[in-house]
Amino acid sequence: MKTINLIQFGLGGVGRAVVQRVLAARDEFEWRYGLQLIYTAISDSRSAAIDLDGFSHAQLQAMVEAKTAGGFLDDTEFGYQSHDLTAIVDIAGTDETIVIDVTATDKTSDALLLALQRGYGAALANKKPLTGPFSLFRQLTSTGRLRYESTVGAGVPVIATLRESILASFDPVQRIQGCFSGTLGFLTTGLEEGKDFSELVAKARTLGYTEPDPRDDLGGMDVARKALILARTLGWPLELSQIPVESLFPPEMATGSVDDFMAGLPTLDEPYRLRVAAAQEQRKTLRYVASLAAGQAEVGLQEVARASALGQLRGSDNLAAFHTSVYNQTPLVLQGRGAGVHGTAAGVLADIVALAD
Amino acid sequence: MKTINLIQFGLGGVGRAVVQRVLAARDEFEWRYGLQLIYTAISDSRSAAIDLDGFSHAQLQAMVEAKTAGGFLDDTEFGYQSHDLTAIVDIAGTDETIVIDVTATDKTSDALLLALQRGYGAALANKKPLTGPFSLFRQLTSTGRLRYESTVGAGVPVIATLRESILASFDPVQRIQGCFSGTLGFLTTGLEEGKDFSELVAKARTLGYTEPDPRDDLGGMDVARKALILARTLGWPLELSQIPVESLFPPEMATGSVDDFMAGLPTLDEPYRLRVAAAQEQRKTLRYVASLAAGQAEVGLQEVARASALGQLRGSDNLAAFHTSVYNQTPLVLQGRGAGVHGTAAGVLADIVALAD
Repeated sequence: MKTINLIQFGLGGVGRAVVQRVLAARDEFEWRYGLQLIYTAISDSRSAAIDLDGFSHAQLQAMVEAKTAGGFLDDTEFGYQSHDLTAIVDIAGTDETIVIDVTATDKTSDALLLALQRGYGAALANKKPLTGPFSLFRQLTSTGRLRYESTVGAGVPVIATLRESILASFDPVQRIQGCFSGTLGFLTTGLEEGKDFSELVAKARTLGYTEPDPRDDLGGMDVARKALILARTLGWPLELSQIPVESLFPPEMATGSVDDFMAGLPTLDEPYRLRVAAAQEQRKTLRYVASLAAGQAEVGLQEVARASALGQLRGSDNLAAFHTSVYNQTPLVLQGRGAGVHGTAAGVLADIVALAD
Repeated sequence: MKTINLIQFGLGGVGRAVVQRVLAARDEFEWRYGLQLIYTAISDSRSAAIDLDGFSHAQLQAMVEAKTAGGFLDDTEFGYQSHDLTAIVDIAGTDETIVIDVTATDKTSDALLLALQRGYGAALANKKPLTGPFSLFRQLTSTGRLRYESTVGAGVPVIATLRESILASFDPVQRIQGCFSGTLGFLTTGLEEGKDFSELVAKARTLGYTEPDPRDDLGGMDVARKALILARTLGWPLELSQIPVESLFPPEMATGSVDDFMAGLPTLDEPYRLRVAAAQEQRKTLRYVASLAAGQAEVGLQEVARASALGQLRGSDNLAAFHTSVYNQTPLVLQGRGAGVHGTAAGVLADIVALAD
């Protein structure tokens, strides 16, 4: 039976979900594709574990448990203190290898380039390598062996639909609109229901919908990176700095502690209430939207018709609406759970299968 | 440059749109994939045209024009009176060949099986070969070289999402619900707006939304075939006869002329009005739904919540909602133009690209 080596960078929430899904799917995978998936290397932010024969189910479980408990791989018997990702690819790769990048750093690019140069595949949930210079995006994606479904819309097949349905059928794209943040979806739906902005941010933070510092979500940069990945997938040579991004808080709140930020939020309640009311007078509602048209992308709060696909979106679901030559009267719409580790991990697994197949 | 031979069965509305899209995309296709697409054979319902060197742009345009004017291929200088599809595959195929089936008959199966046996690819918009005996479906699809995106939801990537996102990520499917008839979508949206059933059917017929005999749409068999293809894609060994299908007219109206049928339609207005009113009392609305769950499929008029994805669907758009282990609170939803030759032709082209790539 043919073996496919997996080398995984990152063992956070998404990383652990990917390991769990691979373990759960292994037998069916062998039966369906005649391919055996083995992990020869895993790294976390501090250390790594390598076994060229492949880690056992029990060993992988032990690593996941150690990480879940807040530890690191070098706390386990398998790990050692090294974090040279390029060396890991060099050591743990074979002919049939897929590198999985589920980190959130821009430090993986060299290792990914080495993997692609060796003929390996790569599956990314990490947006950073794809949102650096355009030339790096081109280098990474030109082989066709790097897939990145989970970077936009988690498991909702936004990238696959764009590449393999719309672009593959030579259907010219006129406009893409999307809501790509579950957190900001939760906020805008709450605003529509009349809730206060400060209360919604506090609740989202308590529920774990936001990063520890909610400004990381409210600033919009994560959505901007997704818009950039879509734009570049369309072939547009944009840079991140060329995308106008509307932050949901004023610049003077960007510095200072998280506690100060949270304490200052009620000052924004009234301005948002007025903005929501103005939209509602025109049968519209506010959504945090990534818009792509005519070679340009922008990201920010938009008034959208309540009856539109974006206006009907509820809660933390993600949505992409493609306006094309074929989909000219109503857009092609994809919608579903865009947040949470399971959707993202499912998208990574779909990429692994596509690369292995 | 590598050449890919296209053999196309069918030159009706969809078939002509496929030829036009291939001609329009040819240059970009060569540039993008380094592959040259040539047509070596085309058949219509009476005759065929074969040229092993590949037809020129002008020749293909002439065939499309002849058919658009109501003629047949054997009216042109290229056609000859033969309609043995297996012989056409035998003569016009080479190492790199894709057979395109855009007919609506069950007479293409033998030729498709021969093509697959030779190692060719096949792209189907024709549902009939896939909705015969389950054993034939297995034979046709087991090689992985037969694609059928356009059979369900036209260009909306329902099949690709099911196969390459959901099944590929080993995400168990609990339930699929879909609206897969633009015609019946037009009718149910109209009923919701208070219009009479008879008036809506007459209008749909005038607009060309229905087959010449509207009973072909109202009977639900076309939707049942789509449900069967989805069920079989899930691996369920169902037969068409095992799918309960609700017809939108009573059995006594199944015989007789189209004119008699149209004249009898007003007798159905009051029953439908009552049914719509009963649904609306519960904040629901009627949709013609294909439902798949627990190994079973059924097709018919359902009361769905107005606030659900199906309830919010408008007009002739198609929709598929996948309820899975990952998409458990809200479904993964795909929505877009499901009717018309252009969406279908786009789906066929995406299949050709996937097979060629």
